[in-house]
Amino acid sequence: MPLAQALDDLQTFLGERFSRSKPDLDAHAHSESYYAPAPPDGVAFPISTEEVSQIMKICAAHRVPVTGWGAGTSLEAQAQPICGGVVVDFTRMNRVLDIRGDDMDVTVQPGVTREALNTELRATGLFFPVDPGANASIGGMAMTRASGTTTVRYGTMRDNVLGFEAVLADGQVIRTGTRARKSSAGYDLTALLVGSEGTLALVTEITLRLHPIPESISAGICAFDDIGSATAAVMETIQMGLPMARIEFVCADSARAFNAYAGTDMPETPHLLVEFHGSPSGTAEVAQQFAEIVADHGSTGFEWSSHTEERNALWAIRHNAFYAILALKPKARAVVTDICVPISQLARAVEETRQDIHASGLMGPIVGHVGDGNFHAALLIDPDDAAQLATAKALSAAMAERALRLGGTCTGEHGVGLGKKAFMPAEHGGAWAVMGQVKKALDPHNLLNPGKLVSDDTY
Amino acid sequence: MPLAQALDDLQTFLGERFSRSKPDLDAHAHSESYYAPAPPDGVAFPISTEEVSQIMKICAAHRVPVTGWGAGTSLEAQAQPICGGVVVDFTRMNRVLDIRGDDMDVTVQPGVTREALNTELRATGLFFPVDPGANASIGGMAMTRASGTTTVRYGTMRDNVLGFEAVLADGQVIRTGTRARKSSAGYDLTALLVGSEGTLALVTEITLRLHPIPESISAGICAFDDIGSATAAVMETIQMGLPMARIEFVCADSARAFNAYAGTDMPETPHLLVEFHGSPSGTAEVAQQFAEIVADHGSTGFEWSSHTEERNALWAIRHNAFYAILALKPKARAVVTDICVPISQLARAVEETRQDIHASGLMGPIVGHVGDGNFHAALLIDPDDAAQLATAKALSAAMAERALRLGGTCTGEHGVGLGKKAFMPAEHGGAWAVMGQVKKALDPHNLLNPGKLVSDDTY
Repeated sequence: MPLAQALDDLQTFLGERFSRSKPDLDAHAHSESYYAPAPPDGVAFPISTEEVSQIMKICAAHRVPVTGWGAGTSLEAQAQPICGGVVVDFTRMNRVLDIRGDDMDVTVQPGVTREALNTELRATGLFFPVDPGANASIGGMAMTRASGTTTVRYGTMRDNVLGFEAVLADGQVIRTGTRARKSSAGYDLTALLVGSEGTLALVTEITLRLHPIPESISAGICAFDDIGSATAAVMETIQMGLPMARIEFVCADSARAFNAYAGTDMPETPHLLVEFHGSPSGTAEVAQQFAEIVADHGSTGFEWSSHTEERNALWAIRHNAFYAILALKPKARAVVTDICVPISQLARAVEETRQDIHASGLMGPIVGHVGDGNFHAALLIDPDDAAQLATAKALSAAMAERALRLGGTCTGEHGVGLGKKAFMPAEHGGAWAVMGQVKKALDPHNLLNPGKLVSDDTY
Repeated sequence: MPLAQALDDLQTFLGERFSRSKPDLDAHAHSESYYAPAPPDGVAFPISTEEVSQIMKICAAHRVPVTGWGAGTSLEAQAQPICGGVVVDFTRMNRVLDIRGDDMDVTVQPGVTREALNTELRATGLFFPVDPGANASIGGMAMTRASGTTTVRYGTMRDNVLGFEAVLADGQVIRTGTRARKSSAGYDLTALLVGSEGTLALVTEITLRLHPIPESISAGICAFDDIGSATAAVMETIQMGLPMARIEFVCADSARAFNAYAGTDMPETPHLLVEFHGSPSGTAEVAQQFAEIVADHGSTGFEWSSHTEERNALWAIRHNAFYAILALKPKARAVVTDICVPISQLARAVEETRQDIHASGLMGPIVGHVGDGNFHAALLIDPDDAAQLATAKALSAAMAERALRLGGTCTGEHGVGLGKKAFMPAEHGGAWAVMGQVKKALDPHNLLNPGKLVSDDTY
């Protein structure tokens, strides 16, 4: 039995850092999503690149699937080993290897979380800005092409990964990229690996851009009468080129959820939450310009502050939105949608989505990184109610199809995983088969996270 | 004869838009570089994607090489058809197809030049910022991953291409990317094609990000006593997070060349030329901060202006630098080097390069996009003097090797072409073979710009 032999070889090689215990298998059978669990046959906990390479060689020799695992926070089950085999859990490869303050970059192991990284950076005056909400691992964020609230200013993982060390499907270790800020030296393998969801390689080191902590950070909030006014203000803000660090939307239902969750008394209408980074006078100027824009769209009460406590209180609204929404409905789980459209289509996409959700009978508050045209509906379902899950999936599908009709994408930042694979033909057409050709060239035996991202016709 | 048959078929298909005339072949035998000419066997001038697809199908049927051609401005001879075959000249596919001001994006054909694009954008309040100096075609810029003076603020072509329509090696037409500002929907084929130098596909449409023309633009210049002071000021500026739109270095020899060329009286010492984009008060504040930084590094005379005429006079120095340098030596050609290093290594890289050049006996002024750590030496040679060419190539090789030792890249923005292929193994190690695997997967018969970018061992 090739699988049994591979598991035995891994046990011999890793000793207690290889597990076949039911708790370990169960812990790697699902991520923070509603998909049915799919346990692996074994879990490896490597502590070095050399070990990852050797694990990959053992699995390649026996044609055993290998799926990388970061913090398990993915919403589309990217790290779920749906074909079984071995999960490589990077939790113990969580060191910050080299902070180079002068160059504003850092090299980390994949298992470090973004919060742990920023804690280590605290004394440097620099920070790593990509913030998907969850305290995800940097490896997972890179593999999902994660982004989040600060993308409008600092970009996604695509823009912030300078290079990788990676283990290929045959166990070979390569390096992509350099520490130069730009290069024209051949295919951008770094960009190819970002967002590849572990289907092309296991990344073992990641070099990231860092950014100076701004001299001044101001944040503010404003309420609107309706969605259309809020999104029109967003569009004008972006088109004016205002240097926004964050511009987040929460819908009326989200405001209601937060009031219930936190005992606050926000108006239960759509809001924008914003942040400005720069010099004290620069952020004040931008805040003033933003206040004028939102006033033109009927929001008169724009309040902002550069005090840390007030900013933190404000962002607690956004950061707790998911949990506040979940608390709307006892024992609910959420099917979280994730579309991104051209900014001119944002108002229409949000409004039509809201109407669809209201018509469905489900609760589904909408929040979004609207400066990028990206928003989510958290569709609340009873996980034991198949009809509700079917309704939520139909709503999610309608959103994805709408996004594609409007020139957008079925996933702005959560990735393909299990939930978006069905939309890949419509989004990419013939280019999806090209992805399959790339996958097959780099992983001829379909060992790396099989069943994900590319078409099942690839092999 | 397969080649003869392909040429006949193309003649039949394209009529007068297919040429085998000696002037046309000669015009596509070399770009703006010192490499020996290599003419194609025929030149096609398509006017539509369908024609490009059909040209590719004809060439594929007869296994004839196909090389794309934009404006012929490449410095590393990327578009030179070194294996003969057919050049696809995109000059007549030069339309701006769709300007979407609300979304701040535009779709263009590959043959439009960046200046023509910005002329068409004039009335929109938007502009396309990537500026490599030459009036290159957008297709060529995308394929070379071009950048230039504004990259420190607006990024390279990698950051500004949202998607492509492209013709694959078998003639199939695909689309990559969407008009959404970000996506996590699978492999980033757009990023894979950017910088691929025509070896993976012929791009037939390009969708680009646009940016708002800043309310205020200020530019300034300052002189330093030595290279080290200038680069130290650059490093401090970047680390402070000052929002620079341009920060360009010219060396003492460049200043001398410009004085001789334009009759000016700049101090013949190293200079920084900078530009700030923002609100009037914002740019004034940044200018003040920058003035303080450069004063700390011994430059006391920082002058800046937001008047268009004065700005244009200032940037004439930088934009004419290449021609001013060429004029230093009658009938000279230039071997233009192009390394990019981490910013902490910039002073060392520039100073050691300068010493090498002085020791060689060649003239080789240095200019650079130093905010990115990227700089060029223009090594002046008599093209008929083999010894001078050999000296220049040795200097270029020493620079590339130094860049790699310092954690940088052998080419920041000019691309691999013929000049940098020798450094690909040292820069990429095993990852170079991965590029070959990708190439072979997408172009199994090595038809697209053969002999470039990947190893000759690929096929």
